Amino acid sequence: MDYLESLGLRAKKASEVLAKLDPATKNLALRAAAEAIKKNSKAILEANAKDVARAKERGMKESLIDRLMLTTDRINQMADGIIQVSALKDPVGEVLEIITRPNGLHIEKVAVPVGVIGIIYEARPNVTADAFALCFKSGNAVILRGGSDAIDSNRAIVNYIREGIQREKLPDDVILIVTDTSRETATKFMQMNEYVDLLFPRGGAGLIRSVVENATIPVIETGVGNCHIYVDETADLDMAVNIIDNAKTQRYGVCNAAESLVIHRGIAQKAIPAIYERLSSKDVEMRGAEDVREIVSGIKDATEEDYAREYLGPYISVKIVDNLDHAIEHINQYSTHHSEAIITEDKDNAERFLNEIDSACVYWNASTRFTDGYEFGFGSEIGISTQKLHARGPMGLQALTSYKYQITGNGQIRS
Amino acid sequence: MDYLESLGLRAKKASEVLAKLDPATKNLALRAAAEAIKKNSKAILEANAKDVARAKERGMKESLIDRLMLTTDRINQMADGIIQVSALKDPVGEVLEIITRPNGLHIEKVAVPVGVIGIIYEARPNVTADAFALCFKSGNAVILRGGSDAIDSNRAIVNYIREGIQREKLPDDVILIVTDTSRETATKFMQMNEYVDLLFPRGGAGLIRSVVENATIPVIETGVGNCHIYVDETADLDMAVNIIDNAKTQRYGVCNAAESLVIHRGIAQKAIPAIYERLSSKDVEMRGAEDVREIVSGIKDATEEDYAREYLGPYISVKIVDNLDHAIEHINQYSTHHSEAIITEDKDNAERFLNEIDSACVYWNASTRFTDGYEFGFGSEIGISTQKLHARGPMGLQALTSYKYQITGNGQIRS
Repeated sequence: MDYLESLGLRAKKASEVLAKLDPATKNLALRAAAEAIKKNSKAILEANAKDVARAKERGMKESLIDRLMLTTDRINQMADGIIQVSALKDPVGEVLEIITRPNGLHIEKVAVPVGVIGIIYEARPNVTADAFALCFKSGNAVILRGGSDAIDSNRAIVNYIREGIQREKLPDDVILIVTDTSRETATKFMQMNEYVDLLFPRGGAGLIRSVVENATIPVIETGVGNCHIYVDETADLDMAVNIIDNAKTQRYGVCNAAESLVIHRGIAQKAIPAIYERLSSKDVEMRGAEDVREIVSGIKDATEEDYAREYLGPYISVKIVDNLDHAIEHINQYSTHHSEAIITEDKDNAERFLNEIDSACVYWNASTRFTDGYEFGFGSEIGISTQKLHARGPMGLQALTSYKYQITGNGQIRS
Repeated sequence: MDYLESLGLRAKKASEVLAKLDPATKNLALRAAAEAIKKNSKAILEANAKDVARAKERGMKESLIDRLMLTTDRINQMADGIIQVSALKDPVGEVLEIITRPNGLHIEKVAVPVGVIGIIYEARPNVTADAFALCFKSGNAVILRGGSDAIDSNRAIVNYIREGIQREKLPDDVILIVTDTSRETATKFMQMNEYVDLLFPRGGAGLIRSVVENATIPVIETGVGNCHIYVDETADLDMAVNIIDNAKTQRYGVCNAAESLVIHRGIAQKAIPAIYERLSSKDVEMRGAEDVREIVSGIKDATEEDYAREYLGPYISVKIVDNLDHAIEHINQYSTHHSEAIITEDKDNAERFLNEIDSACVYWNASTRFTDGYEFGFGSEIGISTQKLHARGPMGLQALTSYKYQITGNGQIRS
């Protein structure tokens, strides 16, 4: 049995113990893990310093080093995050549906853990604690494969998480880490269908594409967002400008930020200058075709590629359309099916947009930035699914569960 | 654009029309399709006769020819099946959850069609009509890839389905058929992620394995059932014998038939002779290890392989265990996670079994044969899922839907 298989088997065994645990014990273990992390923040910082030193030697970009680097504050936030998850409602055991059949069979559809969850992510040590907490709370064992640049930090964090959960006499193997960080092992890990039930890639578009292409385990695709805002002919212009400003500039690097504007021709002469004024005051570069540039000369030329891009930066594409049909067609063609908004005072147009746009979250008169597990009131978020199966949109603890049917009879046989 | 891509694109376009349809129009179209099938049963029979003649020439097995062959009665049943689906509740547009946020955002989680569904199946023309009806009712376009031996029958059935739906001015392309029945094209079909959202293999274990291995499109794995019945120490013996008889012999070739027995050592001396007597009276061969054969000499030797087999025939394996823990361990090791039952008068043991057995359907004192969409009251069934993601157990129309979040605001921005 090779290295990965033995990890898989250990996780599977641990998941069987975990699936039976009562909520109170799980919550005690989570709080103990958080406490152990806080108490040992010095040791975690030392491990992290090694990672950061190596990363600097290798010439890692400043922004990536910032995501890799831990501070006492960040470690405390990590621990507080675990405590917050412990306070959430336990999703396991919830009776989702009760069916009583004419023959007397009593059928209960009950939420159960998925089993073993694999997480593949970049050099962000906070994901280690965060992913563990959500998987553990929902009764799943987790195998973490973080970026090789964070290996010392991850080892240390996992070490203290384990110290915490051991206090509740739980098996270490509910959290496992792939310490062999070669690409070859990563690919093998994505194909361990016998031991891993579900794979979450957490990171940039490149990481996600690589997991989708190489995995044979079911994957939940998350994150990429070319989000559109459509300004309809009857839009309240102030509202439109405020929402576009918020969705574009409140945070650039997030998947629910707006990347593309679609403007009804009937309002373009008024709307585009107003939007341009606001966005250029924040150094956002607008890119549009000739009909857009005729309205405001400061707008840059847009290529076909611009309509499809997730900039994750201070850029936005603009497209003028003749009517709602064109808007819907354009958005369904170029979007990544994440989040799109219509700004309109016309209820019928809003309803058509909400129904016909094929995206996880569709907004009427609100910012796309609300696509988020916390903003939806889920109390947590493992990611935002851009696929249609199992889970779509912001995913809370429920997305980490499956269900089973428990059927009680008194001797029924089928005739 | 090659043949398959053009099919995919046509289906995608049709699915956009279909997603917007009201329930009444869909139901009229379904009834018109059923009518057209009934009216043209002669032409369908003629097409089927060609398939049957070719199959006989090729020396197809009698049992497979029986599944391929249509009669006027079978065609009428096919049409009646479509009418029954038209009478089911439309799953699309159902509001699954409403969330109101403190900032005034109103969030509705609404059921939507998946989009384009691919069905890969064997030479069973009835699946053509059945799969179409379920996909259409749930707002999905469908691309059918049936066994090459049924190609003339399938063409004819699709032809008359289209004749029916054209009466409601709906696009033909809501139902498409892959007429190039080569294996190469089948494999390409399983990898059309851009156009097909979900793939259902319907058929035997070989077909399902091939689809799971070759597909890059998300697949719902269905069907294989090595179902266990565990006779606990306190079982009501008459009930146990009746349930085992029903689960084993009522129909042999189905995935929810019992294939494996597990018996508590404390009741084995009484239970095994009683079960043997009943099953051997129906020519079922029992296979067990030495401790089983010591109790009844007529029982055959079981190899390790027997515990894992889905016989789909008059055979059953028997295993004696020392306690409930061993029973659960044995079943979780060998089962295909489909359906398992415990026969016991002990409520605590029943609850442990229902909680700890990792299968889609777990029964207390009832036959595994009830794992079925109709028996669960779903009114339809596209298959029985043995995986944990998206759908588990019997799947009705709901399994053919996804959801989206529709969010209504009045200018909310994120702070």
